Amino acid sequence: RRGEMAKSTQLINNEVFQAFATYAAIVLLKMMLMSPITTYFRVTRKAFANPEDTASFGKENAKKYLRSDPDVERARRGHLNDLENIIPFFGIGLLYALSGPELSWALLHFRLFAGARILHTFAYLIPLPQPSRGLTWATGYIVTFSMAYNVLKTVWHL
Amino acid sequence: RRGEMAKSTQLINNEVFQAFATYAAIVLLKMMLMSPITTYFRVTRKAFANPEDTASFGKENAKKYLRSDPDVERARRGHLNDLENIIPFFGIGLLYALSGPELSWALLHFRLFAGARILHTFAYLIPLPQPSRGLTWATGYIVTFSMAYNVLKTVWHL
Amino acid sequence: RRGEMAKSTQLINNEVFQAFATYAAIVLLKMMLMSPITTYFRVTRKAFANPEDTASFGKENAKKYLRSDPDVERARRGHLNDLENIIPFFGIGLLYALSGPELSWALLHFRLFAGARILHTFAYLIPLPQPSRGLTWATGYIVTFSMAYNVLKTVWHL
Repeated sequence: RRGEMAKSTQLINNEVFQAFATYAAIVLLKMMLMSPITTYFRVTRKAFANPEDTASFGKENAKKYLRSDPDVERARRGHLNDLENIIPFFGIGLLYALSGPELSWALLHFRLFAGARILHTFAYLIPLPQPSRGLTWATGYIVTFSMAYNVLKTVWHL
Repeated sequence: RRGEMAKSTQLINNEVFQAFATYAAIVLLKMMLMSPITTYFRVTRKAFANPEDTASFGKENAKKYLRSDPDVERARRGHLNDLENIIPFFGIGLLYALSGPELSWALLHFRLFAGARILHTFAYLIPLPQPSRGLTWATGYIVTFSMAYNVLKTVWHL
Repeated sequence: RRGEMAKSTQLINNEVFQAFATYAAIVLLKMMLMSPITTYFRVTRKAFANPEDTASFGKENAKKYLRSDPDVERARRGHLNDLENIIPFFGIGLLYALSGPELSWALLHFRLFAGARILHTFAYLIPLPQPSRGLTWATGYIVTFSMAYNVLKTVWHL
C-alpha cells in the first residue's frame, strides 16, 4: 500500500494523475466557456450589467440596455452551479489522484463526473425538462463525495 | 531546509500533506452541503429560479413559485461566501503544505480555518447576532493570509 | 522529456513550481481583497444584505439600510469575475506547472495573467471605459486556455 502511494508521487508520469489532469482541464475549460455564453446572451438580448458596457449605444439606449434578461440569468446560474460543483471536484479529485487509487476506479470517477457536468450544461441551457438537470447534478455530486470518502479513508489525520 | 522540503514532496506519505488533505476535504464537503441546504429552502419555501423546476406544480402555481425567498437567498449568500473563502484556502493551503512548514504550525492553521468556517455557517444560517459571523469570517481570512505569507516567504520567484 | 518531467516533481525546489506558487498566491490574495473592498462600500454606502448586519443602526434605519447599492454590486461583480477566472488559472496553472514547461514560457504565462487580472480590477472598480475591462479579461482568459492546451498535449489520457 505505502509503495503504491509512493509511486503516485511521480505525478505527471503517473497514469492516474495524467487521467486526472486530462479530465480536470476539460471540465475547467467547460466551466470557462460559460463566460462567452453569457456574453453572447448579453449582446444578442442587449442586457448589460455595467453602464460602461452600454456607452456605445448612445445616451438613451445606454440606460435601456442596463437590465436583466432571463437567458442571461440562466447562463449565469449555470456558471455559478459550475463554480459550486466543478471546483470541489478539482480540489477533492486532486487529493484523490494523489492518494493512490486504482486506475480503473479513478477513470470511472473522472469519466462519470465529466460526462454528467457536460450533460448538466445542456440540460440547463436548452433547458431540458426536469429531472434531467437534477440527475446530472446529483451524479457529479455523488462522484465527488465518493472521491472525498476515499481521500479521508486514506489520509485521515486530524 | 532544502532536505526538509525535499521530503515534503513525498506528498501522501507526508504528515503535513495528510493533515492538509483531511481538513481540505472536510471544508470542501462542508461547502458542498450548502447545495442541498439551498434546495431544502427552495422546496419548503416554494421559491424556485427556473420555470422547469415548477412545471410539476400546475400552470398557475408554476408562475407563483418562481420567486426569491429570504431563507433561500441567505443560504445562497452563505454558499457564495464559502466559495470566496474556502477555495482560496484550498489553493493557498496546498502551496503552504508543499512549502515544508512544521506540522504543529500547519495543524494550527488548518484547525483554526476549519473550525472558523463551520461556525461561520451556523452564524450565517441561524442567524446569530453580529459580530459572530464577522469574527468567524475574519478568523478564516487571517489564517489564509498567514499561510500565503509563509508560501511567499519560501518560494518568492517573480 | 521524461527526465525533465521527473525533475519537475521535486515541486517546491523546482523553479517553475516556485514561480507558479508565487503568482498563484498573489492573484488569490488579490481575489481575497475583493471582500474588504465590498465591505468598505457596504459600510460607507450603508447598503447591507443581512438584517443582523444593520441591527446596530436602530429599528428604523435597520430596515432602510437593507438595500442594494451600485458600488457594492460593482465590487461584487468584480469578485465573482475573479472567482470565474482566477480559480481556473489556479487549477490549470498547477497542472501546467507540473507538466514540465520551460521556465521562460511558464513565467510569460504567469506574469501576463497576474498583470492582466490586477489591471482588470482597476478597470472594473474605477471604472475605466471599455474595452479596458474586456481586454484585460480576454488576456487572462487566453493565457489560461494556452496553459490548458499545453497540459492536454502533455498528459492526454482519456
